[in-house]
Amino acid sequence: MTGYRIDDGLVAEHNAVLEAELAADYEHLGAKLARSGRDIEAITAEVQRFKVAVPTWGVGTGGTRFGRFPGPGEPRNVFEKLEDCATIQQLVRCAPTVSPHFPWDRVEDVTELKERAQALGLGFDAVNSNTFQDQRGQKLSYKFGSLTHTDPAVRAQAVQHNIECIEIGRKLGSKALTVWIADGANFPGQQHLTKAFERYLDSMRQIYAALPEDWSVFLEHKLYEPAFYTTVIADWGSSYLAATALGPKALCLVDLGHHAPNVNIEQIVARLIQFEKLAGFHFNDSKYGDDDLDSGSIDPFRLFLVFHELVNAVVEQRPGFAPAYMMDQSHNVTDPIESLMSSAIALQRAYAKALLVDRDALSAYQESNDAIMALETLKRAFETDVGPILATARMRAGGAIDPLAVYRTSGYRARKDAERPQTPNLGGGIV
Amino acid sequence: MTGYRIDDGLVAEHNAVLEAELAADYEHLGAKLARSGRDIEAITAEVQRFKVAVPTWGVGTGGTRFGRFPGPGEPRNVFEKLEDCATIQQLVRCAPTVSPHFPWDRVEDVTELKERAQALGLGFDAVNSNTFQDQRGQKLSYKFGSLTHTDPAVRAQAVQHNIECIEIGRKLGSKALTVWIADGANFPGQQHLTKAFERYLDSMRQIYAALPEDWSVFLEHKLYEPAFYTTVIADWGSSYLAATALGPKALCLVDLGHHAPNVNIEQIVARLIQFEKLAGFHFNDSKYGDDDLDSGSIDPFRLFLVFHELVNAVVEQRPGFAPAYMMDQSHNVTDPIESLMSSAIALQRAYAKALLVDRDALSAYQESNDAIMALETLKRAFETDVGPILATARMRAGGAIDPLAVYRTSGYRARKDAERPQTPNLGGGIV
Amino acid sequence: MTGYRIDDGLVAEHNAVLEAELAADYEHLGAKLARSGRDIEAITAEVQRFKVAVPTWGVGTGGTRFGRFPGPGEPRNVFEKLEDCATIQQLVRCAPTVSPHFPWDRVEDVTELKERAQALGLGFDAVNSNTFQDQRGQKLSYKFGSLTHTDPAVRAQAVQHNIECIEIGRKLGSKALTVWIADGANFPGQQHLTKAFERYLDSMRQIYAALPEDWSVFLEHKLYEPAFYTTVIADWGSSYLAATALGPKALCLVDLGHHAPNVNIEQIVARLIQFEKLAGFHFNDSKYGDDDLDSGSIDPFRLFLVFHELVNAVVEQRPGFAPAYMMDQSHNVTDPIESLMSSAIALQRAYAKALLVDRDALSAYQESNDAIMALETLKRAFETDVGPILATARMRAGGAIDPLAVYRTSGYRARKDAERPQTPNLGGGIV
Amino acid sequence: MTGYRIDDGLVAEHNAVLEAELAADYEHLGAKLARSGRDIEAITAEVQRFKVAVPTWGVGTGGTRFGRFPGPGEPRNVFEKLEDCATIQQLVRCAPTVSPHFPWDRVEDVTELKERAQALGLGFDAVNSNTFQDQRGQKLSYKFGSLTHTDPAVRAQAVQHNIECIEIGRKLGSKALTVWIADGANFPGQQHLTKAFERYLDSMRQIYAALPEDWSVFLEHKLYEPAFYTTVIADWGSSYLAATALGPKALCLVDLGHHAPNVNIEQIVARLIQFEKLAGFHFNDSKYGDDDLDSGSIDPFRLFLVFHELVNAVVEQRPGFAPAYMMDQSHNVTDPIESLMSSAIALQRAYAKALLVDRDALSAYQESNDAIMALETLKRAFETDVGPILATARMRAGGAIDPLAVYRTSGYRARKDAERPQTPNLGGGIV
Repeated sequence: MTGYRIDDGLVAEHNAVLEAELAADYEHLGAKLARSGRDIEAITAEVQRFKVAVPTWGVGTGGTRFGRFPGPGEPRNVFEKLEDCATIQQLVRCAPTVSPHFPWDRVEDVTELKERAQALGLGFDAVNSNTFQDQRGQKLSYKFGSLTHTDPAVRAQAVQHNIECIEIGRKLGSKALTVWIADGANFPGQQHLTKAFERYLDSMRQIYAALPEDWSVFLEHKLYEPAFYTTVIADWGSSYLAATALGPKALCLVDLGHHAPNVNIEQIVARLIQFEKLAGFHFNDSKYGDDDLDSGSIDPFRLFLVFHELVNAVVEQRPGFAPAYMMDQSHNVTDPIESLMSSAIALQRAYAKALLVDRDALSAYQESNDAIMALETLKRAFETDVGPILATARMRAGGAIDPLAVYRTSGYRARKDAERPQTPNLGGGIV
Repeated sequence: MTGYRIDDGLVAEHNAVLEAELAADYEHLGAKLARSGRDIEAITAEVQRFKVAVPTWGVGTGGTRFGRFPGPGEPRNVFEKLEDCATIQQLVRCAPTVSPHFPWDRVEDVTELKERAQALGLGFDAVNSNTFQDQRGQKLSYKFGSLTHTDPAVRAQAVQHNIECIEIGRKLGSKALTVWIADGANFPGQQHLTKAFERYLDSMRQIYAALPEDWSVFLEHKLYEPAFYTTVIADWGSSYLAATALGPKALCLVDLGHHAPNVNIEQIVARLIQFEKLAGFHFNDSKYGDDDLDSGSIDPFRLFLVFHELVNAVVEQRPGFAPAYMMDQSHNVTDPIESLMSSAIALQRAYAKALLVDRDALSAYQESNDAIMALETLKRAFETDVGPILATARMRAGGAIDPLAVYRTSGYRARKDAERPQTPNLGGGIV
Repeated sequence: MTGYRIDDGLVAEHNAVLEAELAADYEHLGAKLARSGRDIEAITAEVQRFKVAVPTWGVGTGGTRFGRFPGPGEPRNVFEKLEDCATIQQLVRCAPTVSPHFPWDRVEDVTELKERAQALGLGFDAVNSNTFQDQRGQKLSYKFGSLTHTDPAVRAQAVQHNIECIEIGRKLGSKALTVWIADGANFPGQQHLTKAFERYLDSMRQIYAALPEDWSVFLEHKLYEPAFYTTVIADWGSSYLAATALGPKALCLVDLGHHAPNVNIEQIVARLIQFEKLAGFHFNDSKYGDDDLDSGSIDPFRLFLVFHELVNAVVEQRPGFAPAYMMDQSHNVTDPIESLMSSAIALQRAYAKALLVDRDALSAYQESNDAIMALETLKRAFETDVGPILATARMRAGGAIDPLAVYRTSGYRARKDAERPQTPNLGGGIV
Repeated sequence: MTGYRIDDGLVAEHNAVLEAELAADYEHLGAKLARSGRDIEAITAEVQRFKVAVPTWGVGTGGTRFGRFPGPGEPRNVFEKLEDCATIQQLVRCAPTVSPHFPWDRVEDVTELKERAQALGLGFDAVNSNTFQDQRGQKLSYKFGSLTHTDPAVRAQAVQHNIECIEIGRKLGSKALTVWIADGANFPGQQHLTKAFERYLDSMRQIYAALPEDWSVFLEHKLYEPAFYTTVIADWGSSYLAATALGPKALCLVDLGHHAPNVNIEQIVARLIQFEKLAGFHFNDSKYGDDDLDSGSIDPFRLFLVFHELVNAVVEQRPGFAPAYMMDQSHNVTDPIESLMSSAIALQRAYAKALLVDRDALSAYQESNDAIMALETLKRAFETDVGPILATARMRAGGAIDPLAVYRTSGYRARKDAERPQTPNLGGGIV
């Protein structure tokens, strides 16, 4: 790997300029928090422990069925994707793992892939299978489904692909397989709703049986798209039924964009925690459907409320609580690296604010049905500008106080544009 | 009971006028169905077996938080409600049971209530408890919840009320208790989402323990309203978790208007059937929220698709399938009797059409992923005008070919207006 | 008026305790803003100019069609409502006007009403008519519509009521009439969609003709409820058509809760500003429908984005921009005074943050399509904790640094509970 | 053109088999309608006058951002597309025009294109421009907008493209240009909402100026996708503002799938008719978003209600009413020819049922606010099985009684698969 990397010296140089002001802000915030008995150092330490995975496909430009507008210097293979992921981690220091997608990230030599990642300081999170597209040379088509197809041969092919993903993941050091299927129907009547679910369970049981002892399988539901009348795993209810039918290694993954309009997502999260079935998250934000926008860009308060449930689970020591975090966003009009850095920070921000909630006070207000003070308690935390905590956490971990500024100054994207000559790839975007 | 009843002679008189045309239509439809091997008589017989309960509160005029506009001759007590229900049954012959609501329908002498109903040819379906309102003289308020209230005394009061409902229901010959609670929160933070659900389970376990051997308890979920940020039993996922935690007598009730926008309700129905947890339905229709409009008035195809799943369950002999049917509508601008008769027929219509689906053909199209022919198969059934079947079924059972016409001719409402002098009751409507 | 009022000394006492910390926070925030060339004093001064009206009905407990749970010490008439409004204004100092609703606030002597308000330091904002309910003794019913009723006599009655509201408003010093009608239909076919709109325009033209020279009429749209299939003025498009047909005094009022799911409200606001038809706002928040929750309690970022458009309009000197602001919330589980104070501050907060947006930077990012930096620019403002500005603005205007704390310490509600013996009023809530 | 065409003899042969039964059904339906004074022949004649355009892109397989699954024998250019369109028209006889899309359908010789179409019996409907994608060799990118781009050079390029479309359309015999732009933003702040609309109007004015005397321009709004935070022409309100600002040749196009959840589309249609701005329709159906499903496949009653407004406009002789009809669907899992034939018939069905509505009775019920009978009047028409009318209309016009059966028997698709060897084209689908 001979590609351009940002010099740590540039980070240090940038930080040097901003450090004094940051220190002042951090000190004032510390004093303010101290008034209500909060120790800023404890919060900062906790924020430093927060980590979120980057999906390898996230560093490419996304698109819609109407078109895709590539950006300059896009990574052309998984090795270049790792390079971009490493740059993200270098600057934000909370994204040390990547989540690969097969067959997109298929390589001849898995060991080489693992070593390259290690050399870049990266590890591997959950592996993702793909049975929602046909690949060149693929024997049977997934046009009418994969794990739930009416043809047992197609199901067998899809099961086999998932088992291969587990095999690759095992070599990479992953501990989980995420399964999202697009199976469903566009027409009433097209699919027998119950039989499709039975076939799903049957296929998943075979995949489940192939899981190593210490692995989990994450079931990801999605209300619609690409299927537009019915989707086999459309909601958390179906996901929960499946996870329960499969066994303790099967857990329910929550993608923030995969719900019906208006649904209270934090409540779903609470339910899955309570019944010990929360796998983790695919983070993003949305306004209309599964928009896959940047985390916290549309409704940061909702994101905070989700993290409030997560902190609750820790504080209350809910059994089996160990969620996996990943960003799953489609970057159509931004530099993906910039979006991912900004989104990682948005997640940390939600987490830091959730940590600030005065839980004793909140509990008392809940007990006495003091709704206005309960809300005020949440808002006091939410309205706190935790920027100094996040920047300090980054800086202390070796990252940049202002990652976007360093990144732009570095000219990374232009360098990659030169390093990575592209074959034109317009058309509908895949994410 | 000395109130006015429609003379069966009037029904006969009306039928006599329409009978010949109906016979011609029935005959032609029979011939048409025979071409594809369907026996109209078998369908008609099956339609005659379909029954749906009328809720006692449904025969009063509903309203919204903005106001209520009473109609003439509204029933002033449960006995007058029974009278209206009996009139519905007299004309449509598929609504032989009523579903009472307590304390609204509380009487001194439950035996008298039962006898009056029997005298009118009516039986009792599920009993409904009410812990979403405060009643005059009630000791503790449900303002901040009932079965999930933070105060154990409020929970105990709510549990006790449900147990009383079971007691009354037992005397009336009911076999099920329907529990809908409005518990939830209007503010983020107001309620501890997990603890509220734990309290719900704890309360419900006490109610469950009081169920007679041959009884069920129906858990009714609702996405929102009157709670506007979170509702404890907001979706079928939470309902299923609760029903599973409680035991085999606990089942999930589906109210067609209690879902998030765009959600595929027939799929939820299919899932609950598959996992043997479908209690039954509260039928109505909606365009925006829980509008409680007349069944089939907004989206009759969706209603047909729900019934398609129900017929599937029968044909496929899904274990434990025995759903309870009730109409749960708010009649704000119509004569409730007219709406309920028209809605009962709309349900029969959906059922009759679902019976007409060529399931063998459909199965074959599903197996071969022939989406367009699968849809065509459903539409062929849906587009069939089954009116002659429904009218014949009614007529044969002693009902009216055109119930609305007989009802209007009878002058029933004007007679009741004279019989039932009203105390004015404007203000927000309760349904 | 002999009712209890909070002593200003209590406010001063409370402020004295908090003043030093506030000063420190304010100073640090000032220094931080100064780094990017922002003058905190200018912002604070601007925040002090922000005013929002309180609707008289807002100080009573709201409800839903399922029930209403009154709180203690509710005002029993418009004079007691004024008292509560004055208390809000005393503590938050940005709510100096009230918006009355007729016939709810009808009094014998309008001059007395005006004088009582003046004595309490209150003025009158827009007057609101009510043709969505029937009142005891009302000649013709609005069950099937008011301004759009098929019966010209009902329309004439509704027009006349609106003209009376203008008359009362003129005496009170109002300058605008807000017209919201519930007219619509619950059934397809019930209403001729076009003729209903023609009748609306005809009726509104008569009301428009009665407007004094310097008055406006605000047309309020609402997607649904209480009409559940179609509403005559359902969206901003219909509202705009009507306002244009009527003339320059007719403007479109935006209630934040009256839109379809997912709709981008800030864009509607921008359009109405651009075409010089924005009347102003009914502020609240919502998650599911027209939930009427406390402003900023569900999605504070959306509220900020609305205010961002409002500040844009000022900065860009959009012609005719002079919106009227009112809170329109239903307080079902809180003390209405507490909710209204908290909500008024939430609006100030959104405004203060919108003022902080670096508009020059934003413009440059918009011109160069730098989406990520455009968002960052908004978020930098949004993430700023402007609490010290708001508290300072209140304190300088004579209000409370912590209005909720002062209010609770005062025992105001308990005093009112003693002063205002209630007639029980359960049942569906009206708001 | 030497491609395979279905022999008219095959159609005749098929019809011969079905004719007798059709005649019996038609006769019985005629007798039934005659009872209420309706002349079946008049209805059939009116149905024969109904025509709907087929978009050239509709005969190719669609897809989503997740993938595209091509079908066999897809047309590879506009000439092959015409061939497929001609086959549709041959069998259904209500789709005699095509709507081309540029640059997708760009040819060297426009006259040749016109002649080929004429030879196939096809004419040209509205032409469609495309500035939502980048084409190979295109000078400036539309990544950040087209007609509203901040860069005047991009706007000029987009304007120029639209003017070229008008030029081509003029040669083809079109009379309208349809403009849909994807312009918008994915991030709050990315776009200045008002300035973007100003730029839109400025660009559109240039296009408007290039319209021939007898042309119209259709403005198509869409709530979201591909832009996910804001879209410049997002709703009918914005579309109406633009059409009004541009002048009488500018009209508002309604795509049934481009609205917010729950919105009452038939009301929007009524408003646009009333204010003489309805351009016409892009027909399809949807359950979740802009799903582009087959017309009438999800909610046939809603489609009927839209057609009810259209028939109203004719009956009431609303001025300027002359809507253009087109099917705009994405066929992802069906043979596009089959879907388009089936959808064309679904539109005819909705139209025929709308014609059957007893408008005098309905008017009387509306006047007297008889909601239940108003609904019954609509349902009586909707529940009528008009299949015999549609089939007779087709047969009389030379089409097939059962178009799907003839098409399948012909082996058309397999023949085309042989005639049209494909270059593989997986990836995201464009429609």
